Amino acid sequence: MASHRFNPTFTDNVISAMGKNVNPRFRQLMASLIRHVHDFARENELTVDEWMAGVQLMNWAGQMSDAKRNEGQLVCDVIGLESLVDEITFKLADEAADAPTATAILGPFFRPDTPFRANGETIVRTAPTDGSGETAYMTGQVVDFATKKPLVDAVVEVWQASTNGLYEQQDPGQEEFNLRGKFRTDVEGRYSFYCLRPTPYPVPDDGPAGKLLKLMDRHPFRPAHIHIIATCDGYKPLTTQIFDRKDPYLTNDSVFAVKDSLIVDFVERKGDPQAGLELTYDVKLVPDKTSKA
Amino acid sequence: MASHRFNPTFTDNVISAMGKNVNPRFRQLMASLIRHVHDFARENELTVDEWMAGVQLMNWAGQMSDAKRNEGQLVCDVIGLESLVDEITFKLADEAADAPTATAILGPFFRPDTPFRANGETIVRTAPTDGSGETAYMTGQVVDFATKKPLVDAVVEVWQASTNGLYEQQDPGQEEFNLRGKFRTDVEGRYSFYCLRPTPYPVPDDGPAGKLLKLMDRHPFRPAHIHIIATCDGYKPLTTQIFDRKDPYLTNDSVFAVKDSLIVDFVERKGDPQAGLELTYDVKLVPDKTSKA
Repeated sequence: MASHRFNPTFTDNVISAMGKNVNPRFRQLMASLIRHVHDFARENELTVDEWMAGVQLMNWAGQMSDAKRNEGQLVCDVIGLESLVDEITFKLADEAADAPTATAILGPFFRPDTPFRANGETIVRTAPTDGSGETAYMTGQVVDFATKKPLVDAVVEVWQASTNGLYEQQDPGQEEFNLRGKFRTDVEGRYSFYCLRPTPYPVPDDGPAGKLLKLMDRHPFRPAHIHIIATCDGYKPLTTQIFDRKDPYLTNDSVFAVKDSLIVDFVERKGDPQAGLELTYDVKLVPDKTSKA
Repeated sequence: MASHRFNPTFTDNVISAMGKNVNPRFRQLMASLIRHVHDFARENELTVDEWMAGVQLMNWAGQMSDAKRNEGQLVCDVIGLESLVDEITFKLADEAADAPTATAILGPFFRPDTPFRANGETIVRTAPTDGSGETAYMTGQVVDFATKKPLVDAVVEVWQASTNGLYEQQDPGQEEFNLRGKFRTDVEGRYSFYCLRPTPYPVPDDGPAGKLLKLMDRHPFRPAHIHIIATCDGYKPLTTQIFDRKDPYLTNDSVFAVKDSLIVDFVERKGDPQAGLELTYDVKLVPDKTSKA
C-alpha cells in the first residue's frame, strides 16, 4: 500500500482510532474517505497553503448556503459528483430491474412545496418580460416499465428556469411557483400542461463553484432542460431531467447530467393558439417491491 | 483503471472538460481530487442520501466559521489531514536540509496580532479562577540547526489554552491575549517566560467536527501542548507544538499532531517563588536559501 516516503502507518493510525461503537457502513465510508483524502495529499505533496485554500473554499460554500441556495451541492455538481452518485443509484436499480426511465440529478432548485395544477393548465404564470420564450404543450403517459400498463393517479412534478436563466426563487420578477407544477395522471395515465421550451442557462457563478469553474477554464452553462419527479403508489420515485436535442451545450453540460436516453425532440404543433411546439414524453416507473401498495 | 461496472469514461470526461488556460499545478490537483472523489463514490456505491449528508456537513462547517473559529479546518484536523500536510511539508524541508526542529500543525486558535512581551515576563495574565494550574518557567535558545550558532533577535511566539480547556478568544473570562506572547531572543539567542504547565482539553465538539468524532466513537481530547512559531531573518519560519510527556492523551491525540521529537519534560524548579516547574527547549531553524538576509 505505502509506496511513498511518508510515515507508512499514519493513515492506518487515523482509521484505527475509530472506536468499537461505530455503524459499520459509516466506518466503511470514513475509512475509505480518509484513505482517499490522505492519498490525494501525499500523491500531490499538498502544501499548507493549498490545503488552506481548500478549507476556505469549503467554508465559503457553507456561508453562501441558505434555504434557497445550496452552494456545497453546486461545488459537488461542477466536479460531477452528484451526476456520478445518480449514475450509481440508477445502475443499482437497473441491475435489480431492467430499463426504466433513466435518472438525473435533482439539482439545487427543487422546492418541496410546489402546488398541484389541473391537466392542460400552463405553468407559465409570469411570461418572460423581454418577449422571448416559445410555448410548448407537453404531454405523455406514466406507465409500468415492464407491463406498459398506464398508471392512474401518478404525480408528475416539473420545474424549469425562465428564459433569463433564473428559477422563480432566484428572481423577484417571477410570481411564486412560476414554471413549476404538480400534475396528477388521468384514467389513461396521462398528464399534460403548457410550459416554455427550455433555454440554456449558467449555474450561479458568484461563489466557490463559479470560482472553481473559472480556475478550470470551463463555462458555467447547463443545456436546456426540464426537471421531472414522477411518483406513484407502489412504484419507486423517479427524479430526472429531459434535454432539448437542439441545445448547443448538450455535450458539455457544466454538471455532467446529460444521458442519451433523456434527450427529447420538440416538434411543431398545429391548430393550437396557445402553443407552436409540442413534446410527448412517457415516464416508465419500476414497481417498488418493498412497498405494500 | 476502470475495474468497476459504471460508465468507464465519466471521470475522464469531467477531468478533460478543463480548458487550456488552467494553471498546471491547479490542473494536477483538480484532476487528482476528481479521480479520488469519484473512486470513493464508486468503491462505496455512495447513495444520494449519504452524499447529501456530506454536503450538509460541509455547509454546516462553513456556517459555524468566523474570524474566531475555523470549523472547516477542524473537520480536516480530526481526519488527520492538517497533520499529514504538515508531515509532507516537514519531510520535504528535511530532505532538502537535515534535522531541524520538527513541525506541527498551526491549529485553529492562532492569532496574528499577539503582542510582544519582555523576556522573563509571564503570559499568565488571567490566572485560572478555580485555583488549578501549575506555573512553569520556559526558556531556551534559538539556534541555526547546522552550525548551532545562537540566533539573536529571533522571535518566539507562543500560545496555550487555560486549564479550563479554552483559549482566550473562546472565553470571556480571560483577558485578551492571555496565555499568548511574542519574545525576542537576546544576545545569546535566549528567550524566557512564565506560562502554565499545559493541560489536555477537548477540541470544540458542538459542530460537524464533534459530530464526526461522536459517529467515529472517538474522544475529542488533545494532549497538553504549547504552540510555538519561531521566526528569524534569513531562516525558514517554524510552526510547531511541544507536548508534555506525562499526558494521558499522548498516544491518541484527536488531531494526530504528536511526534516523538516534540515530547518534552517539565522538571522541578527550585528557589523561584514564581514557578515550581521548569522547561528548557531549544529551537533549531533552517537557513532560507531563497532569502536575501
